[in-house]
This record gives sequence, structure tokens and C-alpha cells, in this order.
Amino acid sequence: MPLRVVGVDPGLTRCGLAVVDVEPNRRATLIDVSVVGTPPGTPLDQRLLAIADGIDAWLDEHKPDVVALERVFSQLNVSTVMGTAQASGVVIVAAARRNIPVALHTPTEVKAAVTGSGGANKDAVGKMVAKILRLDAPPSPADAADAAALAITHGWRGAAFGAAGAAASASGSRPAGGSSGLTPAQRAWIAAEAKARSVKAR
Amino acid sequence: MPLRVVGVDPGLTRCGLAVVDVEPNRRATLIDVSVVGTPPGTPLDQRLLAIADGIDAWLDEHKPDVVALERVFSQLNVSTVMGTAQASGVVIVAAARRNIPVALHTPTEVKAAVTGSGGANKDAVGKMVAKILRLDAPPSPADAADAAALAITHGWRGAAFGAAGAAASASGSRPAGGSSGLTPAQRAWIAAEAKARSVKAR
Repeated sequence: MPLRVVGVDPGLTRCGLAVVDVEPNRRATLIDVSVVGTPPGTPLDQRLLAIADGIDAWLDEHKPDVVALERVFSQLNVSTVMGTAQASGVVIVAAARRNIPVALHTPTEVKAAVTGSGGANKDAVGKMVAKILRLDAPPSPADAADAAALAITHGWRGAAFGAAGAAASASGSRPAGGSSGLTPAQRAWIAAEAKARSVKAR
Repeated sequence: MPLRVVGVDPGLTRCGLAVVDVEPNRRATLIDVSVVGTPPGTPLDQRLLAIADGIDAWLDEHKPDVVALERVFSQLNVSTVMGTAQASGVVIVAAARRNIPVALHTPTEVKAAVTGSGGANKDAVGKMVAKILRLDAPPSPADAADAAALAITHGWRGAAFGAAGAAASASGSRPAGGSSGLTPAQRAWIAAEAKARSVKAR
């Protein structure tokens, strides 16, 4: 039975949403993608409410086993990071209200998991997402492709480390696991994750 | 009829909540204070859910006219600012779901409004909050006193600028108003607010 992962790339203008089913053999299938959000200039409370309503409906429709969310760093993009953090808080509560575990992954982890390189650019990530999901082209817009990449990252982490990997909580804890028999992408991902955990980001 | 303001000092460990009724003549009365939150080390999703449940219950019980929330700056306290921003997002959505307007105020604005000086320390703010609310001592802990100061700041802004002031939205817009007949604290607050608006903080 596949693990159903909802990936969320948080943002006020475009919050990317993706549903990916990941089989124990790592085969990943895209079920749905969407983008919710509001134009800049909309009052902040209405922007966050739109995100809340969108994620509520998405979780109720797709009933995922886990939500994989991009970890927001305060060092990056100072002009937009506060809104992105607020949106991520809204998404986390929506999942918590439904007893759905939330896992946070850094952009570097996602790039490493999907392409084998933590320094891959958006174009490379999009192409690999399309290949992994057996699509003719990457999901559009880029925020939806990023959400799909997050879901794949988390689903593969679950496959690599056993079912417990899927329940890694938003506290950032990670189940222990051996590193034997891993693909280059998995090894790069583990290195990226270890590096991310060494940064005090919250 | 007084304006009922809920002040919120957002945070994951201690989120201060206060309810203050402000009369048109600026007389402010403390109705209730509380602190919600969870110890550090609690999984993030459970921390945010506790904030969500706490603010939901608080708004349903006290039915305020407006929520006054501290504006979070990404430049400050990098280690905790992301959690604080996520908590503030949760609070804003709780208000928006109830059609309660949300107003954001910077710490400098609050200090200026309550003490007449944007550079006042916490002790001075607490003492003035106690004096304004006719209490024997500042609300405790400090997070609750800060929440009360936020509520007073917003209530007085409403009194200074007319009823429209109370509906200043989370977009940061401010109703126009004359500066005649203002107290020194109000003039200091206006100067602090103008300075805050010149900082690109989100």
C-alpha cells in the first residue's frame, strides 16, 4: 500500500500543493497538484485565511498519511520570509488538527533527494520530478513542482528508512537507520540533511 | 460603548493574551489575561496546535472588536523568530475566520504609546501598564503585560483617530488623521509608527 504524501511549498502569493503516492519500491505517482494564494497587496489576514481554507480542503479531500513542508530559514529572502513562515504555521496547524504528522525538509535536502545534488537548480529539479513521476513535463507552476519534489523527498525517506521515516515529526527528529544499500541520491540527501541539522534555523 | 481589544504577544513558549476595554475617553480596563504555550522540545506541530486552540477559545469567550498583534521582524532574534512568525500566522487566521480585524503594532510603537518613549525598557512598560489599567502591579508574566500594552496601544489609536482606527487592517494601512490635540505619548507613537513604516520588514 503506497504512502500518500502531501507536499507543500509555503508562500502567500503561490502556495504549491501536491499529492504523491509512493510505493515501498520507491515508485512515485502524482495524484494531484494545485496552487493556492492571493495577489500581493491583499490584506495579510485575508491572505492567510485563503491559505488556511485551501489547505483544509486539500487535506480533507486527499487524506494523506503525512504532510511534507519546506523548512523556512530566517536567513533567506528577508522581504518575504515572515509571510512564508506565517503560511507554514497555518499549514502545520491544519495537519495537526487532523492528527496528520508533519515533516520539514530543507530546499537542499529536496534537491539532493530528487537530483542527487544539493546544489541543483530549479530547472534540474523540475526535470527530475517529471522523470520520477513519469510525466511529459514538470508540474506547473514551479511552486507545484517544488511541492511534488517535497512529497517525493519525504516518501523516499520513508522507503529508505522504513515506515517510521514517514512519521518523522515537525520537531525535526529523524529515525535512526543504516546507510548501506543507498543510491547516490540517498547518500547526498543524508549528507544534506546532516548539514541542515547543524544549522540553528529555528 | 468601549472598544474591546484582544492583545496578543506571539510566541511558542509563552503567547501572552490580554483583553482590554477602552472607552472613547481613553479609560482602559483590563478584563482578563492569560498565557498559552508549550515547553521548548515539544514537537512544533503540537506547539502550534496549542496556540491555535488557545486563541480560538479566547476569541470565542471574549468576542473582541479587534485583535492587536505584535508585528514580528525577521531581523531580530533569529533563533526564535520563525516560531514566533508561525504562531502569529495562526493567530491571524483565528481572527480572520471570525471576521475580527487584525492590527499589527511594532514593539517601538507600543512602548511609545504606553510610556511616551519608544526606547522604554520592559520594566517601565509594565509599570505604565499597571498605572493605565489601575492595577496594583503589572500583569504577570511579562508576556501578559506586553499583550495588555498592545491592546492599550491599539485602543488608544482608535480613540486618537476615531472609530476607523480600530479597523486598521493587517495590511498595515492606517487611516489618515490630524495631529492636533495629541498627548506627548501620542506624538511619540506617531513618530515611532512613521519610522516603523519606513523599515521594509516583510
